[in-house]
Amino acid sequence: MNYRLISHNLGRILLVEAALLVLPAIGALIYGDDTLTAFLFTIAALAVTGAIATSFKPEKKNMRAKEGYVIVALSWILLSLFGSMPFVISGYIPNPVDAFFETVSGFTTTGSSILTNIEALPKSLLFWRSFTHWIGGMGILVFVIAIMPKTENASMHIMKAEVPGPTVGKLVSKLRASARILYGIYCVLTAIEMIMLFAGGMPLFDSIVNSFATAGTGGFAILNNGIAGYNSLYAEMVIAVFMLIFGINFNLYYLILIKQVKQALKSEELHWYIGIVAVSVVIIALNLTTTKYGVAEAFRYAFFQVASLVTSTGFSTANFDTWPILSKSVLVIIMFIGACAGSTGGGIKISRVIILIKSGIRDIRKAINPRSIETVKIDRRPVDEPVVRGVSTFFGTYMVVAAASLLLICSDTNDLTTAFTSVITCLGNMGPGLGDVGPAGNFANYSMFSKLVLCFDMLAGRLELIPMLMLFSPYAWARKYS
Amino acid sequence: MNYRLISHNLGRILLVEAALLVLPAIGALIYGDDTLTAFLFTIAALAVTGAIATSFKPEKKNMRAKEGYVIVALSWILLSLFGSMPFVISGYIPNPVDAFFETVSGFTTTGSSILTNIEALPKSLLFWRSFTHWIGGMGILVFVIAIMPKTENASMHIMKAEVPGPTVGKLVSKLRASARILYGIYCVLTAIEMIMLFAGGMPLFDSIVNSFATAGTGGFAILNNGIAGYNSLYAEMVIAVFMLIFGINFNLYYLILIKQVKQALKSEELHWYIGIVAVSVVIIALNLTTTKYGVAEAFRYAFFQVASLVTSTGFSTANFDTWPILSKSVLVIIMFIGACAGSTGGGIKISRVIILIKSGIRDIRKAINPRSIETVKIDRRPVDEPVVRGVSTFFGTYMVVAAASLLLICSDTNDLTTAFTSVITCLGNMGPGLGDVGPAGNFANYSMFSKLVLCFDMLAGRLELIPMLMLFSPYAWARKYS
Repeated sequence: MNYRLISHNLGRILLVEAALLVLPAIGALIYGDDTLTAFLFTIAALAVTGAIATSFKPEKKNMRAKEGYVIVALSWILLSLFGSMPFVISGYIPNPVDAFFETVSGFTTTGSSILTNIEALPKSLLFWRSFTHWIGGMGILVFVIAIMPKTENASMHIMKAEVPGPTVGKLVSKLRASARILYGIYCVLTAIEMIMLFAGGMPLFDSIVNSFATAGTGGFAILNNGIAGYNSLYAEMVIAVFMLIFGINFNLYYLILIKQVKQALKSEELHWYIGIVAVSVVIIALNLTTTKYGVAEAFRYAFFQVASLVTSTGFSTANFDTWPILSKSVLVIIMFIGACAGSTGGGIKISRVIILIKSGIRDIRKAINPRSIETVKIDRRPVDEPVVRGVSTFFGTYMVVAAASLLLICSDTNDLTTAFTSVITCLGNMGPGLGDVGPAGNFANYSMFSKLVLCFDMLAGRLELIPMLMLFSPYAWARKYS
Repeated sequence: MNYRLISHNLGRILLVEAALLVLPAIGALIYGDDTLTAFLFTIAALAVTGAIATSFKPEKKNMRAKEGYVIVALSWILLSLFGSMPFVISGYIPNPVDAFFETVSGFTTTGSSILTNIEALPKSLLFWRSFTHWIGGMGILVFVIAIMPKTENASMHIMKAEVPGPTVGKLVSKLRASARILYGIYCVLTAIEMIMLFAGGMPLFDSIVNSFATAGTGGFAILNNGIAGYNSLYAEMVIAVFMLIFGINFNLYYLILIKQVKQALKSEELHWYIGIVAVSVVIIALNLTTTKYGVAEAFRYAFFQVASLVTSTGFSTANFDTWPILSKSVLVIIMFIGACAGSTGGGIKISRVIILIKSGIRDIRKAINPRSIETVKIDRRPVDEPVVRGVSTFFGTYMVVAAASLLLICSDTNDLTTAFTSVITCLGNMGPGLGDVGPAGNFANYSMFSKLVLCFDMLAGRLELIPMLMLFSPYAWARKYS
C-alpha cells in the first residue's frame, strides 16, 4: 500500500471540502446565524489537516486499484467526520455520533435523519445539510477529478469506485473531460430546477436546498412536514419530475448533448425505468382509490411517491406506511431496484436487475438445451462475463451485509419490520423505511452502536460495497502485496 | 419435446403413487376410518390414468435435459393433484384448492397447513398427510429410479432436477445404485427414529408419523399443539437431533458406510452447518434468558427451534413469534440459509451460501489485485465456474420469484410481515412464518388464488426453481428445438 500517495490524495479532498464549507459560512453571515464560528473552526481544521496530509509527496505516483478503493473509502469517512463538526460545535446536534449519522446520511444521499424537529436548525446548517446531498450525489472524488489541474492516469480506479452501477461508461477518452461533462450537466439541471421552483412561488432558500436534495436524490427536507408542507401541486410535480430526471443515467444526457438523441432513447435501461415507474404508479394509484383518496389525488400521491422511492430520494407527501399493503409492497420492491446506473439514485440499480433477470433466463435456457450458446445482452450488445458474474456476486454480498447488519441492530427495536427496513433503507441510500423509521418517524431512537452500523451500511451502499468491505480485508493491507 | 417419453414416464410415477396409497388404505381398514372409499377411488383413478399414460411407448428413448426437467415438474404437480383426492372425496378438506395446498405442502416438505383443527382428521388421512413428507423428502423420482427395473442413461437429468443443492455428487458410478443407497440410508435412519420415539413412550402411530415428518424435514404435526403437545423433553431431544441428522448431506452417510469417516468429517459444509447451529443456539438461548425462561429452558427451546428451522422442518415447541426480535432475526436468517445440499432440508442450502460468500471475497480480492487468479474452493477443491455462476443466478432468480409472489398475494392480508414471510416460508419449504402465519397461525385465511401462488412457490422451492420456471418458458416448448 502506497501510504504517501493515499495521504496526499486524502489531503487534497479535505482541502476541497474546506473550500465547499465557505458557502454555508457565507450563509451564516447573511442570515446572522450563531453557527459562523463552528463553520470557520471546521474550515480551519480541514485546511490544517489537508495541508499536512498533502505535504506527504508520493515517490511512486502510479496508483493501483486497491489504492484507488482505499482513497475512496477513507475520503468518504473523513469527509463525513469533518462535515459533522459544524453540527457538533454549534451545539445543534451535540452528540458526535448523531451528527456523524446525519452527515453520512447527507453525503451518501440517504436522507435518513435523527432530527425530530428539523425546523429548529438555523438556515446555514440546513443549507450545509442539503448541500452534502448535492456534493455526494455525483461523487466528490469525481468533482476533484474534474477540477484537478492535471489528469493522472490512475483516476479511472476512483471513478470506478465512486460512480454507481455495474460498469463505468467512459463518456470521452479523457477522464477529466468526462468528469467535467458530468458535473456540467449536473449543475445545469440543478439550476433549472431551482429556477422552476422559485418561479412557482417557493422561497429562494427553499428552492435552493430542495433542488440540492432532489439532484443528489437525497431527500433531506427542511420542513417537518416534508414536501407536503408547501401544499403546492406545482412544486410537487416539478420535484417529482426532477427526481425522475436525476434517476436517469447521465451518459444519456451526454448523448443528447452531442445530438445522438436516437441512441439515447434506445437505451434498454431507460425503457425498463420508464416501464417500472409507469406500472408502479398505475398499480398504486388504483390501489389507493380503494381508500380515502379520489382518483386525481391517488395519482398525485402515487406519482410523487414512486418517483421519490424509485430514485431513492425519500421525499414524501403522504405517510405511505398507512397505505394498503399492495402499495407498500410495490414501494419496497422499487426501493430495492432503485434507479439507473450512472445516476445519483440508489438501490441495486436497474441495469443490475436486468442483468440478473437475463442471466436467470439464460440459465433456464442452458438447462433446456445444455449445448446452446447464450449470452446476456443489453442494448443488443453482449455483456462481459465478469460483469455478469460481478452483478450476481454483488447481489449475494448485499444480502450478507444486510443480514449481518440486521443482527447487529435488532436488539434496539421490538419490531422486525422497523429493523429490517432500517437496514435496507440505509444500504440502498433511500431514506425512510417502514414502522418506526417510516416517513413519519426517524432514526433518533437507535443506540449509538446501531447508528454506527447504519452509517457503515449507508457508506457501503453508496460506494457499492467493495471499497468499504476492502477496509476489513487483511489481504488489502498485507505487506507482501504492498 | 418428446411427448410420448414424458407421458410414459409420468404414467410410471402415477402407478408408483397408486402403490404407495395402499398403505393409508390399509390404515383406514385397521382404524375403521370412513376414508376407505376415498383411498380406493384415488388408487383406481391413478391406476387407470397411469396405465393409459404408460401405454404411450416412446419411439426415441433418449431423454434430453429439458424432458427430464419437464417430467420432474409435471410429476410433482400430478402427484399433488391426485394425492389431494382422498382429502376432498372423504370430505375432510372439501375445497380442492385447500386440499391441493395441503398436499403440495406435504410433498414439498414445507409443512404449512390450512387446517385449523388437525386433530379432527381420521388417522388414515393423518398418516397419508405425513407420509407425503417422507415420500417428497428424498424425492419420489429418485425413488422411481431406485426401483426401476433397468437404468436408463438419461435419469441423471432427473436426479439433477430433484436432488437439492448446487451439484449432484454421484455416490457411485451407477445412478440406480446411488438412488438405492440414498433410500436405504433414509429408511434406516427413519426406522431408528421411530424405534427411539416409541421406546420413549410415544404411541406407535405418533412415532411413525412424526418420524416421517422429521425424515422429510416436513413439519406436519398431528396434534394441534405440535410437538409441545407431548410435553416430553426426551421426545423433543430425539426429534431435534434427528432433524439435524436429516439436514446433513446424505453423501456423508455413504462415506461413513464405506468407512471413509475421516473424509466425511472433513466436509466444509458440515463444519459450517455445525457452526451455524451452535452459534444460533447460543445467541437465542442467551437472548431468551432475558425473558421469562430459565437457562435450561432457554437452551431447550432454542436448540429445538434452531434444529427445526435450519432444516426447514418447521416443528415448534414454543410460539417463537413472541420471542425477542434478536432471536426472531436469527431464526429468519437460518431459515433463509437452510440445511446442507443433498439432504431433505430446504432453504437456499449452506453450500450455496458458502459459494456466495467465497465468491464475494474473491471479487474483493480481484478488485484489490486485478491480476491475481482466484478460484472459489470447497473442501480444498476448486468449484467449477458454471456452478459458481449458477449459484449467484439462483439467488437472484429466487429473489425475483419472491418479489413477484409477494405482489400477487399481498392484497389478501394487511400485514407486510405476514405476506413476506408467507412467501419466504413457502419458497424455502419451511412451514411457519411470522405474524398470522406464525407457529400459532396457519394459511387458512388466504384466498384461493393466493394459495395457488404459494403452491407454485412451494414446488418452485422444492425443485429449486428451474423445472417449474421452465414450464413457463416458450423456448422449452418451441417446435424448432423439439
